[in-house]
Amino acid sequence: MSNEKLPIAVDLSHHLSEVSKARRTSPLKGLAKYMERPGVIALAGGMPNPSYFPFSSLSADALVPDSFPVSTSSSQSSSSSWFWKIFGAGQPKEKTSSVTIPKYAKDPRNNVNLATALQYGTATGLVPLQKFLQEFTAKVYQPAYSDFATLVQTGNTDGWNRAALTLCNPGECFLTEEWTYPSALASVSPLNMTAVPVGMDKEGMSATSLRKILAEWDESVQGKKRPHVMYTVPVGQNPSGATMGEERKKEIYDICVEYDVIIVEDDPYFFLQEGEYVPKSVRSTTSTPDDVSQYIASLVPSFLRYDYQGRVVRLDTFSKTIAPGSRLGWFTCNPVFAERFERAGEVSTQAPCGFGQSLITSLLLNWGFEGYIRWLRGLGAQYTARRDFIIDALADEFDLDLSPSSSAHAVGPWRGANVYVAKEKWQGTEKFAATGRKPLFSFVPPTSGMFIWLKVHFENHPAYAAGDDSLEMKLWVAIAEAGLVIGPGWFFAADDENSPDGPNDGHYRIAFSFSDNDEMKKAVDIFGKVVKEFFKEA
Amino acid sequence: MSNEKLPIAVDLSHHLSEVSKARRTSPLKGLAKYMERPGVIALAGGMPNPSYFPFSSLSADALVPDSFPVSTSSSQSSSSSWFWKIFGAGQPKEKTSSVTIPKYAKDPRNNVNLATALQYGTATGLVPLQKFLQEFTAKVYQPAYSDFATLVQTGNTDGWNRAALTLCNPGECFLTEEWTYPSALASVSPLNMTAVPVGMDKEGMSATSLRKILAEWDESVQGKKRPHVMYTVPVGQNPSGATMGEERKKEIYDICVEYDVIIVEDDPYFFLQEGEYVPKSVRSTTSTPDDVSQYIASLVPSFLRYDYQGRVVRLDTFSKTIAPGSRLGWFTCNPVFAERFERAGEVSTQAPCGFGQSLITSLLLNWGFEGYIRWLRGLGAQYTARRDFIIDALADEFDLDLSPSSSAHAVGPWRGANVYVAKEKWQGTEKFAATGRKPLFSFVPPTSGMFIWLKVHFENHPAYAAGDDSLEMKLWVAIAEAGLVIGPGWFFAADDENSPDGPNDGHYRIAFSFSDNDEMKKAVDIFGKVVKEFFKEA
Repeated sequence: MSNEKLPIAVDLSHHLSEVSKARRTSPLKGLAKYMERPGVIALAGGMPNPSYFPFSSLSADALVPDSFPVSTSSSQSSSSSWFWKIFGAGQPKEKTSSVTIPKYAKDPRNNVNLATALQYGTATGLVPLQKFLQEFTAKVYQPAYSDFATLVQTGNTDGWNRAALTLCNPGECFLTEEWTYPSALASVSPLNMTAVPVGMDKEGMSATSLRKILAEWDESVQGKKRPHVMYTVPVGQNPSGATMGEERKKEIYDICVEYDVIIVEDDPYFFLQEGEYVPKSVRSTTSTPDDVSQYIASLVPSFLRYDYQGRVVRLDTFSKTIAPGSRLGWFTCNPVFAERFERAGEVSTQAPCGFGQSLITSLLLNWGFEGYIRWLRGLGAQYTARRDFIIDALADEFDLDLSPSSSAHAVGPWRGANVYVAKEKWQGTEKFAATGRKPLFSFVPPTSGMFIWLKVHFENHPAYAAGDDSLEMKLWVAIAEAGLVIGPGWFFAADDENSPDGPNDGHYRIAFSFSDNDEMKKAVDIFGKVVKEFFKEA
Repeated sequence: MSNEKLPIAVDLSHHLSEVSKARRTSPLKGLAKYMERPGVIALAGGMPNPSYFPFSSLSADALVPDSFPVSTSSSQSSSSSWFWKIFGAGQPKEKTSSVTIPKYAKDPRNNVNLATALQYGTATGLVPLQKFLQEFTAKVYQPAYSDFATLVQTGNTDGWNRAALTLCNPGECFLTEEWTYPSALASVSPLNMTAVPVGMDKEGMSATSLRKILAEWDESVQGKKRPHVMYTVPVGQNPSGATMGEERKKEIYDICVEYDVIIVEDDPYFFLQEGEYVPKSVRSTTSTPDDVSQYIASLVPSFLRYDYQGRVVRLDTFSKTIAPGSRLGWFTCNPVFAERFERAGEVSTQAPCGFGQSLITSLLLNWGFEGYIRWLRGLGAQYTARRDFIIDALADEFDLDLSPSSSAHAVGPWRGANVYVAKEKWQGTEKFAATGRKPLFSFVPPTSGMFIWLKVHFENHPAYAAGDDSLEMKLWVAIAEAGLVIGPGWFFAADDENSPDGPNDGHYRIAFSFSDNDEMKKAVDIFGKVVKEFFKEA
């Protein structure tokens, strides 16, 4: 934390929901003064003696931070299949180091130990983890004010859920990208909290669309008060794969200041920033800077960097950087909100799981800050290689024509981008009369994250009729029947009826995070075959 | 599951709250049909490839199931201090066996492995864990109907929270013991859900008081509709330590059928059934039956045993039987409620932490059902020894007179019980004129759980004035200043103003779960000294 930064001076407590304001401060707070005295005997809480925890010690073989290269080249192979992991003779052996967590520690507050980690804990989590997260946040995200708080949660879905209930009363609406993470919608829709879809372009949420919605909001027409909370996935936007740059973030932040909007920044893909896709033929080996500060400077910044008013609630998770089963992440926000999030945690999940907390904390302490950064760089390079591999495979399967950002293809999330338009491969014959080599689908290569978002041009399908959106599901089933499951577009619609870009069928999300190269190649083959066949049907 | 049992035939879906009814079925359900086909390539979800999980394997040294004896005798020593655990030469070495979880398994669905456990999982948890819990529930709790469901949650506080939001609309009230677990109240009070306190006796919730409340409910007077949900801790009731027997459970169940009430049975202390306290001088060695069925039959049954209508939501947790940091437990209930709880889980915590799930599942599979039962028997004996030790210590510090259940002391949670009334020890002199050896406090030894609940007789204090409840806090502070922190009674009041037993100050809860014998002895010394001194003050 730089000394030049000041505590926030803006009072944002009017954003707290009625439910959140009514949450009681834990009565245990009153006991803390005594509980922390050395030598005090605590018979207040129902804590079992740690001798009754059946785990005497935990240990883990953990990969070393430089397990993955930091550079990507076109020849790089991605992770291999589980078959080889089990039976794999001839596979290079993973380099691991051992992490052990004893039941007891000499300095139990500061050293990770099971007697503490497996005991009832506060909703703030283990002290060494708190310290790591606070320092990590200061160094990496560099919030614009000094008194930011970090607080553990059990993954960003829990984080958003707690944030939404803390900030919104039932029936209120919130701003979000017109395509978004379905669970973010599903978690709050039972409280009649609905999404106001904001238009998108190649950098995700559009500042122009946002301003228009807020400026033109008329409570008497909309029947709801102007939204004061935004849910956004600014990096590796789910599903579009867009990355929001500095200028856009500043612009959106300023609009949120003007209209008094709280930004909930759900940022699981922050370290999966992949840069622009470069076709295989002209691609060169690239890598991120070795210097930690330069590496951090090479990433698009978090909204926190501009957050001089404390109106950003950032959600970080270990789901993509360690493992989804971690069910561990953290809030970064102003201390007033953090205190309310802590109260909400106390009466639901309490502390995150002690097994996960202790293993992850030990891993992070074992690696150290620089080691973890090295791990993240390697991980980012892996996802870049995966992104490149699957798009290369699409380029092998289809003719991909680059359509300029001024073209009619550059609409919706592709506004402002050069768009790849896929057509059946030209084979110098007349046998393509059926499709006339019309565009089959188009997409913009993602610049971060795990997903390719593409739009199939059903308007070129022989059976297409305006207003009929049945082809989307029909093609999805045909692909699934052929052995490939991808995400149907309607999953991700924030509000299908009120989309700023009008009817929006024909989208699919393809994840390149999981499968190995062979499987991804096979998937693209299936996709290619089924799509081409589909367009020939009458 | 016995073949004679039938599926439930009663429709209880009218108990679902508006929020719960509005929860969407996961769109992923629609994909499941294809996802489960062998050989299908799944590029739908954002799952990282498991090669990116930095943990190659986990292992744990786990105690063997018979680590603790099953019998208790007056000479048995309790767990020793952490100091000896770290430095302890001469301590008997713990017997452990090693549990290892590899990253990959040949049968990943049925064998615990990190590639599955640390991946995104469904809110139903790991398959081998599901199987263990379903079988454990069938064998131990023996629900009265055949199609009961079990579903993991992240501890009973999460369980109650999900149950309350699934069953109650904001503003509704629910039935509970007049003294209860504070977080159960705190979790739902922000939704303006309030507790209707039911009177208690030595078996916990009073059936008479329950019937009276329900029979006399007048919506026009109370301003709220009659409660249709009950929250109860029937074994080792928190804070009273009472155990609800078979007859009482049947009686309460029948009343709940009559008035259409859903019973949420929060039962963390089920395996800590300790029996009646027998004074040290006449105590003999006791142990639970070695035969598993006989052991299970020796425990008071769960409400599930009588639940022919599926109106019980049972909450089990590993917090007291494995460790609180497990943040893992499970619901047992009818399939309609279970499906709604699963939906609520999907959009908050998702699956419980994979580190905890995999380690606990491996431990349970390693121990087996019979091994886990053996562990639970040993644990129960430990708590019985602890309960005996602390009450023995109180008997050393005070004269404990046994006052019959017909006496004026047998009120509130002590109704129907013989009550220990503590007076300053008689030393054959006149120096006790100040207190006149009036009762200082009274209590009923707990028959289950972790807590002694006692009532200090402030009416015998020289500074006592009717209606003034400041002495409770004053004594609490004096004890804390002397180095002992116990639970102040007001924490546990369900609704102080509407308590069926009138003004109820002067209570304290003392946990005997954590400290070793030396520390408990010291705690009782401090408590004795401060209380006696306190009563001499004018």
